[in-house]
Amino acid sequence: MALEKGKGLSQEDVMEMLHHAVKKAKELNIHVSVAIVDDGGNLAGFIKMDKAKLIPSQIAQNKAYTALGFGLPTADWYEKIKDNPPLLHGIVHTERMTIFGGGLPIIINDELVGGIGVSGGTSDQDIECAEAALLIFQ
Amino acid sequence: MALEKGKGLSQEDVMEMLHHAVKKAKELNIHVSVAIVDDGGNLAGFIKMDKAKLIPSQIAQNKAYTALGFGLPTADWYEKIKDNPPLLHGIVHTERMTIFGGGLPIIINDELVGGIGVSGGTSDQDIECAEAALLIFQ
Amino acid sequence: MALEKGKGLSQEDVMEMLHHAVKKAKELNIHVSVAIVDDGGNLAGFIKMDKAKLIPSQIAQNKAYTALGFGLPTADWYEKIKDNPPLLHGIVHTERMTIFGGGLPIIINDELVGGIGVSGGTSDQDIECAEAALLIFQ
Amino acid sequence: MALEKGKGLSQEDVMEMLHHAVKKAKELNIHVSVAIVDDGGNLAGFIKMDKAKLIPSQIAQNKAYTALGFGLPTADWYEKIKDNPPLLHGIVHTERMTIFGGGLPIIINDELVGGIGVSGGTSDQDIECAEAALLIFQ
Repeated sequence: MALEKGKGLSQEDVMEMLHHAVKKAKELNIHVSVAIVDDGGNLAGFIKMDKAKLIPSQIAQNKAYTALGFGLPTADWYEKIKDNPPLLHGIVHTERMTIFGGGLPIIINDELVGGIGVSGGTSDQDIECAEAALLIFQ
Repeated sequence: MALEKGKGLSQEDVMEMLHHAVKKAKELNIHVSVAIVDDGGNLAGFIKMDKAKLIPSQIAQNKAYTALGFGLPTADWYEKIKDNPPLLHGIVHTERMTIFGGGLPIIINDELVGGIGVSGGTSDQDIECAEAALLIFQ
Repeated sequence: MALEKGKGLSQEDVMEMLHHAVKKAKELNIHVSVAIVDDGGNLAGFIKMDKAKLIPSQIAQNKAYTALGFGLPTADWYEKIKDNPPLLHGIVHTERMTIFGGGLPIIINDELVGGIGVSGGTSDQDIECAEAALLIFQ
Repeated sequence: MALEKGKGLSQEDVMEMLHHAVKKAKELNIHVSVAIVDDGGNLAGFIKMDKAKLIPSQIAQNKAYTALGFGLPTADWYEKIKDNPPLLHGIVHTERMTIFGGGLPIIINDELVGGIGVSGGTSDQDIECAEAALLIFQ
């Protein structure tokens, strides 16, 4: 599916991303929540799978928000801050900021159009689900 | 689709409800957000349609929460409180409480299993979308 | 049960109050939440009855807080502010403030030691439950 | 006391759990707060013992919420994250999340029906009180 320049995420994209992230989670036999935010950091789509736990459903939203909020995968953060004590002990307190894997920016045609966050599995599994969702843009 | 007693909403139910609410909104030519909460008032599913506005997307979540939180359609509240000034001036300030139409409790087999909220059209249109979603249980 | 001057509410008092408020609610065939705050406005005891709804369980806490917070029954407020538009339209926005019945200050030996809030029935029913709880001090 | 499948915690269960947690705390000569949340993470019951301190009374609620929110004892978390720096520095900032002992999931018939949190003693003492409460289900 192609995304037109400057159009942002469509509702159809969001539905399809939720679908693919959940499908991957089922393959991995994990129970996750998936959140997608638009380019304003506002919730565009969300789904909680059966048996998904409560706190990860909040974390999924935070991951999506963080990924959009810096335009970076949440998994990149620890490497960036680990040798910088003020950030390691400081920036992690930023509201909603998440520094572990499972949040990916949604970047289309070099344009940051949103963020997706998955939570409920290991960081690697969560990332795998988020990546599966992003495949719809290829 | 039948809901088993004591099972609550499934993720499949939620996805299908989002789909039908959006489908009805398209028929009505309005742009809404749809939120579904589970029986604990926690977000189970959410979608924002293309061109849907930002504040209604928050209102949709509040409507779903209020409908679950009292087990009543949000549209019932004004009639209930209009001749009771302490409630009319008071209960409306309850956090997240919404007293206009568009939120419906999800009651299956006499069991309150969640709430759905739609916002973006008129109250009547929002209610119509929420009702369309609830038809999946019939 | 006598309360010693300056001793505040004991945990035993709180448990007994919760018990009596719930017992009255059962007699009235309503499903309520009951909250008790100490003289610092902090939660001292809470119980949600079976089938009690979610938003009233928050309102119960707000009623207890408001009753302690001014040392007045929450039901007294509307009469106080109805002919004073700045208060009628203003003070009701104070965080957690509740201006309808169901919250009572706990005043023992002329000392304000806490507040109790009941929510889930009509205002009159909620008040009746709160009053039943206060009877333990007579 | 047996819990019927799909019924969740009853108010009677909650009252009894509060009673037993407090009884154990008295045996240990500590002053705790005890919080119980239902399967939606919402407060179902709470009691603060005489002489219990203010911040632990909030921590007790967070422990109950965290135990339900992941379906795990809060005491398990440090072991899980100590060798995973992104989680160690990151997940601890999740709102209400608590990674030290005193919160236990309430799991009955393989079903996660709530969480209990105790705070006011050492972690081990808090856990002992929470475990005493869970004994009512055996």
